[in-house]
Amino acid sequence: MSNTNQQWGGRFSEATDAFVARFTASVDFDQRMYRQDIQGSMAHAKMLAKVGVLTEEERDAILGGLQEVMDEIERGDFEWSVALEDVHMNIEAALTQKIGITGKKLHTGRSRNDQVATDIRLYLRDEMKVILGELTRLQQGLLDVAEREADTIMPGFTHLQTAQPVTFGHHLLAWFEMLERDHGRLLDCLKRVNIMPLGAAALAGTTYPIDRAYTAELLGFERPSENSLDSVSDRDFAIEFCAAASLLMTHLSRASEELVLWTSAQFDFIDLPDRFCTGSSIMPQKKNPDVPELVRGKSGRVNGHLISLLTLMKSQPLAYNKDNQEDKEPLFDVIDTLQGCLRAYADMIPAITSKKENMREAALRGFSTATDLADYLVRKGVAFRDAHEIVGKSVAYGIEQSKDLGEMELAELQQFSDTIEADVFEVLTLEGSVAARDHIGGTAPDQVRAAVGRAREVLAAR
Amino acid sequence: MSNTNQQWGGRFSEATDAFVARFTASVDFDQRMYRQDIQGSMAHAKMLAKVGVLTEEERDAILGGLQEVMDEIERGDFEWSVALEDVHMNIEAALTQKIGITGKKLHTGRSRNDQVATDIRLYLRDEMKVILGELTRLQQGLLDVAEREADTIMPGFTHLQTAQPVTFGHHLLAWFEMLERDHGRLLDCLKRVNIMPLGAAALAGTTYPIDRAYTAELLGFERPSENSLDSVSDRDFAIEFCAAASLLMTHLSRASEELVLWTSAQFDFIDLPDRFCTGSSIMPQKKNPDVPELVRGKSGRVNGHLISLLTLMKSQPLAYNKDNQEDKEPLFDVIDTLQGCLRAYADMIPAITSKKENMREAALRGFSTATDLADYLVRKGVAFRDAHEIVGKSVAYGIEQSKDLGEMELAELQQFSDTIEADVFEVLTLEGSVAARDHIGGTAPDQVRAAVGRAREVLAAR
Amino acid sequence: MSNTNQQWGGRFSEATDAFVARFTASVDFDQRMYRQDIQGSMAHAKMLAKVGVLTEEERDAILGGLQEVMDEIERGDFEWSVALEDVHMNIEAALTQKIGITGKKLHTGRSRNDQVATDIRLYLRDEMKVILGELTRLQQGLLDVAEREADTIMPGFTHLQTAQPVTFGHHLLAWFEMLERDHGRLLDCLKRVNIMPLGAAALAGTTYPIDRAYTAELLGFERPSENSLDSVSDRDFAIEFCAAASLLMTHLSRASEELVLWTSAQFDFIDLPDRFCTGSSIMPQKKNPDVPELVRGKSGRVNGHLISLLTLMKSQPLAYNKDNQEDKEPLFDVIDTLQGCLRAYADMIPAITSKKENMREAALRGFSTATDLADYLVRKGVAFRDAHEIVGKSVAYGIEQSKDLGEMELAELQQFSDTIEADVFEVLTLEGSVAARDHIGGTAPDQVRAAVGRAREVLAAR
Amino acid sequence: MSNTNQQWGGRFSEATDAFVARFTASVDFDQRMYRQDIQGSMAHAKMLAKVGVLTEEERDAILGGLQEVMDEIERGDFEWSVALEDVHMNIEAALTQKIGITGKKLHTGRSRNDQVATDIRLYLRDEMKVILGELTRLQQGLLDVAEREADTIMPGFTHLQTAQPVTFGHHLLAWFEMLERDHGRLLDCLKRVNIMPLGAAALAGTTYPIDRAYTAELLGFERPSENSLDSVSDRDFAIEFCAAASLLMTHLSRASEELVLWTSAQFDFIDLPDRFCTGSSIMPQKKNPDVPELVRGKSGRVNGHLISLLTLMKSQPLAYNKDNQEDKEPLFDVIDTLQGCLRAYADMIPAITSKKENMREAALRGFSTATDLADYLVRKGVAFRDAHEIVGKSVAYGIEQSKDLGEMELAELQQFSDTIEADVFEVLTLEGSVAARDHIGGTAPDQVRAAVGRAREVLAAR
Repeated sequence: MSNTNQQWGGRFSEATDAFVARFTASVDFDQRMYRQDIQGSMAHAKMLAKVGVLTEEERDAILGGLQEVMDEIERGDFEWSVALEDVHMNIEAALTQKIGITGKKLHTGRSRNDQVATDIRLYLRDEMKVILGELTRLQQGLLDVAEREADTIMPGFTHLQTAQPVTFGHHLLAWFEMLERDHGRLLDCLKRVNIMPLGAAALAGTTYPIDRAYTAELLGFERPSENSLDSVSDRDFAIEFCAAASLLMTHLSRASEELVLWTSAQFDFIDLPDRFCTGSSIMPQKKNPDVPELVRGKSGRVNGHLISLLTLMKSQPLAYNKDNQEDKEPLFDVIDTLQGCLRAYADMIPAITSKKENMREAALRGFSTATDLADYLVRKGVAFRDAHEIVGKSVAYGIEQSKDLGEMELAELQQFSDTIEADVFEVLTLEGSVAARDHIGGTAPDQVRAAVGRAREVLAAR
Repeated sequence: MSNTNQQWGGRFSEATDAFVARFTASVDFDQRMYRQDIQGSMAHAKMLAKVGVLTEEERDAILGGLQEVMDEIERGDFEWSVALEDVHMNIEAALTQKIGITGKKLHTGRSRNDQVATDIRLYLRDEMKVILGELTRLQQGLLDVAEREADTIMPGFTHLQTAQPVTFGHHLLAWFEMLERDHGRLLDCLKRVNIMPLGAAALAGTTYPIDRAYTAELLGFERPSENSLDSVSDRDFAIEFCAAASLLMTHLSRASEELVLWTSAQFDFIDLPDRFCTGSSIMPQKKNPDVPELVRGKSGRVNGHLISLLTLMKSQPLAYNKDNQEDKEPLFDVIDTLQGCLRAYADMIPAITSKKENMREAALRGFSTATDLADYLVRKGVAFRDAHEIVGKSVAYGIEQSKDLGEMELAELQQFSDTIEADVFEVLTLEGSVAARDHIGGTAPDQVRAAVGRAREVLAAR
Repeated sequence: MSNTNQQWGGRFSEATDAFVARFTASVDFDQRMYRQDIQGSMAHAKMLAKVGVLTEEERDAILGGLQEVMDEIERGDFEWSVALEDVHMNIEAALTQKIGITGKKLHTGRSRNDQVATDIRLYLRDEMKVILGELTRLQQGLLDVAEREADTIMPGFTHLQTAQPVTFGHHLLAWFEMLERDHGRLLDCLKRVNIMPLGAAALAGTTYPIDRAYTAELLGFERPSENSLDSVSDRDFAIEFCAAASLLMTHLSRASEELVLWTSAQFDFIDLPDRFCTGSSIMPQKKNPDVPELVRGKSGRVNGHLISLLTLMKSQPLAYNKDNQEDKEPLFDVIDTLQGCLRAYADMIPAITSKKENMREAALRGFSTATDLADYLVRKGVAFRDAHEIVGKSVAYGIEQSKDLGEMELAELQQFSDTIEADVFEVLTLEGSVAARDHIGGTAPDQVRAAVGRAREVLAAR
Repeated sequence: MSNTNQQWGGRFSEATDAFVARFTASVDFDQRMYRQDIQGSMAHAKMLAKVGVLTEEERDAILGGLQEVMDEIERGDFEWSVALEDVHMNIEAALTQKIGITGKKLHTGRSRNDQVATDIRLYLRDEMKVILGELTRLQQGLLDVAEREADTIMPGFTHLQTAQPVTFGHHLLAWFEMLERDHGRLLDCLKRVNIMPLGAAALAGTTYPIDRAYTAELLGFERPSENSLDSVSDRDFAIEFCAAASLLMTHLSRASEELVLWTSAQFDFIDLPDRFCTGSSIMPQKKNPDVPELVRGKSGRVNGHLISLLTLMKSQPLAYNKDNQEDKEPLFDVIDTLQGCLRAYADMIPAITSKKENMREAALRGFSTATDLADYLVRKGVAFRDAHEIVGKSVAYGIEQSKDLGEMELAELQQFSDTIEADVFEVLTLEGSVAARDHIGGTAPDQVRAAVGRAREVLAAR
């Protein structure tokens, strides 16, 4: 009978099938939470001593033993065993091997069900802090470039058709705003992550006189959870995090799409430093914007993991089911993906250089100041509806003649309305166009600089 | 040339293809935002008058005309036209028909891009309030039933195997906690919904001296948005809402799964009133738990819409693209689904009756007090590991003899450990088992009542 | 007691709640299957008469009555009732109202469970034929344009960076190949759609001596299904169809992305006729590629419905559950979306015009013949690795000097390798480059024409 | 300059950033295709020799070198380098190190773009064969158990309410049918997997006189692909496979749900051998159905990967983009998941034992023969509608009296209809009920045996 290393064999008449043991084990992926598992166990031991379930000597033996295990793992000297199923039983077994029977007292008043829920929350909390840090670093980079490019004029697009001139700085601030919402969402999520399930035991609580508030305090949790059944079965926090991550990655995918466009020969608006690109093994001229492309691709991965977790939890009866073991790999991969993508972006963004002449040239084409011409006519007393029609016809003429509005002679413009006079050319300049959009949220360079200032204060207050 | 009813035809040389006009129109589904569209237009008109772009007379003519349009729509007298594409142009055209040329001045300083973004936010905000109300009503129902059932003992399950006795009230409070997180998430989401994009115009802001703070105040928005490009392209708020909705529906699907189980002949734990069930056209004995089944099924729908929206936004370059027209139908359907499911649940939950004898009988089977026996042994000085083994063997014997632990003679129990004495039968009672889990989050009836009390305060503070 | 119009009320002590009745009814969306429902009932009646369960008179009365109902519905004279829940009971009730008690015999030996499964399959089969027809029409349009543009040279892209010259015809044939796989997948799916569940009754089959092969033959099904439990619970066919649809929409979204790029001012490779575009209410110069954008957006919708259905079926125990009522709306919307998008594309593609000069000009830039230069060096005996390096350096020089390879003087090229001689300029021409890729699947104009020929034969054989 | 180990550095002025190199490398996960990469290279070398691009000596040197690399990898002696990015460049570099400059000639006429597409297809083809084998093994197990249990009566459920008696064998055949469709879908998918992209080179084909039909033959592909642009960008085959896998996993999740239900104390219909279960570290009595639970959970994972890949491909312009590197991890994980779950199921299913008495007992409860009573009345001349009503009332009485129909006295039944006579008790037996459903697809034991026979022939013909 080979079940000797398992802690639940009493009622069983045959050993677990070898393939099944491997198929159901989680230690290959949950070992990455070893630090949080030990942290949680240390706090649990301290609490048990505080309420008298453990003696102070027992507590100290456990703390010492756990520290040794932690050191071993960090030195790479720990041998993980699939037969011991998961990170929890691997560490507990090692502890008992080190300190003897006292090690077996650690599991008093808890179960793997509440233990794993606690570990994941601790782990996610730690990793979210890294993510929030990288996100802020990226936002800072955006502010720096936005400020630098507050006066750089480029075409703004809707439907990828030239719409109106905007400044490059203004465009980058749009990305900043997306990320700012992500930051807020992650903080909101963190409130719900940082609740302690420990004490729920298997599902109903425990008969020992535990002090959950004390353990929560030791571990930096905001409070213990309210209901034991919910505590062991809840994975909302992981799903909410993945949903927030999907939005964040959607934003990066949108920025990536634009970076890819802007580095194409057709747009040629920016340069990405060589160190963020790779070449082709066959085409010697290629310099591919790998980082944005890969980040764009990785948005699919995060959407997928979100669906994995939602599907996982769909219709699960209370309380814990083995299905939930499937919560970790998607979550871990989302964490890794976010950290990687944010780091790559935070490194790359400040290194982007704008090709101002190309941007300006593009803004001059595409009739980007047509709205300004209509506004000009309105100010001269033409009804907007008629103004729109007049400008529409001027544009049709311009397409035919391959001339933008600003390139036409006054006489040409006057074909469509004799209200047009020589002063029209002022409103047809790019500078005039952007400067006129001078209100909160508008593209005027001064507004861009003001927005950077407000954003800097927000970041400073973090 | 049939483009006469369209407001952008100047540069076009042929009319829109008839099928394309139908294919690209949104009025069939966006007309449900008519109230918000008019509300937004009224505020915009007031602001334009405040900053001097409209005269007071013009403003009043517009306000009066819009009110007439609103009344017509609400009376069912309004004729929606596909040729006018969307709710915005339908209403504007009707206004102009009513008040003449002044109607055409309403669109000054805005674009459909910021208008539609404003409308959706106003609409979602209104509907979220309904949702929050129904959610609270459901939570109240749960608290009432939980209190009523604070002492009702049922088997708690993990892996759908009998685990430990819990109280039915405790179980229902687990559902309450899930919904409480949903409430929090929706409120957090609402903060990000309630930001005003109006003033972004097409994408870059406008040349008119608009006062966005004033319009925001009129419409009850927290503040105007920070960046015009972001404002017209952002659909985060819809996605975040759908993600929160997916979690809410996941919770309802989990509760539904349990209701379906509990009404099966095999569990037979509860009764659903006939009015929430339907029968079969072929099998005369059937009484099917339609409402929970349908709600469970509808969770798929909401997950699907979440993916629709995430896919929609993936890699979209700034600013507005026509793709975004696809944002509305999924969002509307999620709103309808949530409102329907919450209403059905809020009506149904208080009407559930528990079959206490069946629950109790089930809790007596399945060796639900095995953990209590192990704890008893530990208190008598047996190491937990050995206690677990002893109880495991007792259970194996019980399965063979078809006897639960509480049904065995003392002598039978003593086969496995002579530490067991007559006082063991106290800990093997269901009442003793649940009462012993007496800490925050535990299943003890007193804890359940205390939790209900705390929850009532939370609801009262809303 | 208001249950009089329901056919299962015997065991019930109270009427269905009014809101629940509405919440659980499906007639609003399943009425679109009325034709298939009647068709199925007619075949069922004929079979019942064949095996002697109905008399010939009864059969004829039923057939006559059903035909009347069909006519009424098609004339728009039929009144659908939510109280009668679904399309099946609405039609059966109308039949009975028309022909009296004989109408009640129609439901002998079947249940709504197998009836609805049959209806959906018949409906989907009919709609798939429309879809396959539109798909073929689109493919034909692509072949026509591909042939026309077999010699038109444009830059081929990888990473959206200019890679090598290709022909526009070749590019369009890539789209053709994608759609060709979609066609194959839909046909494979159709095999599994076209199986008849009728006869499974509620879940276990029926006690009447039914002849399922006969009914299947009448309805054009390939064969009756093999297992009654599976028959009433299986929705694979809907999911498989949606998965095939997701791929089809992915292909259209990719084509749309390219159309949007190509109509931008930066690419300016093609013209879309005005009738497939719309304008802006604020910017008079805009002509937006609405159709491709909307189609691109609609791919999200179909992915979402696929997930809805997969989530719906996840973990459902056998046999029929009410959850399954949620199968129809996603499926119907996918059908509508496919038909709309394919029609729009099939109309639009033949109307695209290429701007050959712009394409050619773009192909001349971006060092698109760099690989050809490397191949030239290899043919002159340089190792490929060294050739790649030489060309890489030439490109770096070209970027600095703003000269493409074909624009350099021989002396300039010779700076990097004296193996380069005057004959190099032949391989640097676009025509030479594309013509040299002359094998099956290659971009050489002759290969494009040959591929069109083979594809035409495939379509002709349909 | 540290780019020395990269094969595209000529035009680059700085080395790849170290983090970027790691972030963009794929060798950690694509090395698992080493065998297919080498196989593909060997076929490519043979073809190059056949058309005269390589000499026979060069070919033999390459084949020998590649074999050495393969052996090294299989022995575990190969050192993978992240700096060399991917499996292709790692192997090519090793080859060149072994055989010198000739190694560099291998890449003639191909690119990594067509190489990786070829590798994935070869790899997937190989793994699909394993999957099809395991699937067949599982189906065989189901047939064996179905035959053994052809006469075992259990309650059939709809809405998880007792509906009609069925046989356990019949129920298992429903699972068989689901899997049979999966087998068909996978074979259909395989047709589209087994097409050779090699020869597409970077995107446009190659200038060398390659013989694609020959290479395809060597590699066992059905034919070369038709279009080079499509060949390097197409990932349909991976998505189609994942969609088929999602359905397969949906089926296993449904079976798992039932296994979990059936092993609960409330149903207690079957026994799972201990070797497929695990226990609890805290509750000594637990024996948890881990394998079905985990399989059920893993269905989420596969749905998620499907969405990852669909999202990945959405809106990608032609031809290859770096995004596509993200295709491999989801695909590989789906393959692993399917192989693991199918193996676990194929091992487990034959080991299930039915608890016939419990099943029978459950079928006797729940008024499962109510439909039979209605049918009995119809045969005695009562209209079905009235019969339904009569039985409905009998059931209401039975619920009140806690008596099933078969347990009532004749007089009790006659309260509801005096048409009922003593012969009614024959139709109320379980055996009579199941035997009467005696047509193709029905639950009659003889039909089950016949269905097993037909299914055995299908499997034998594979």
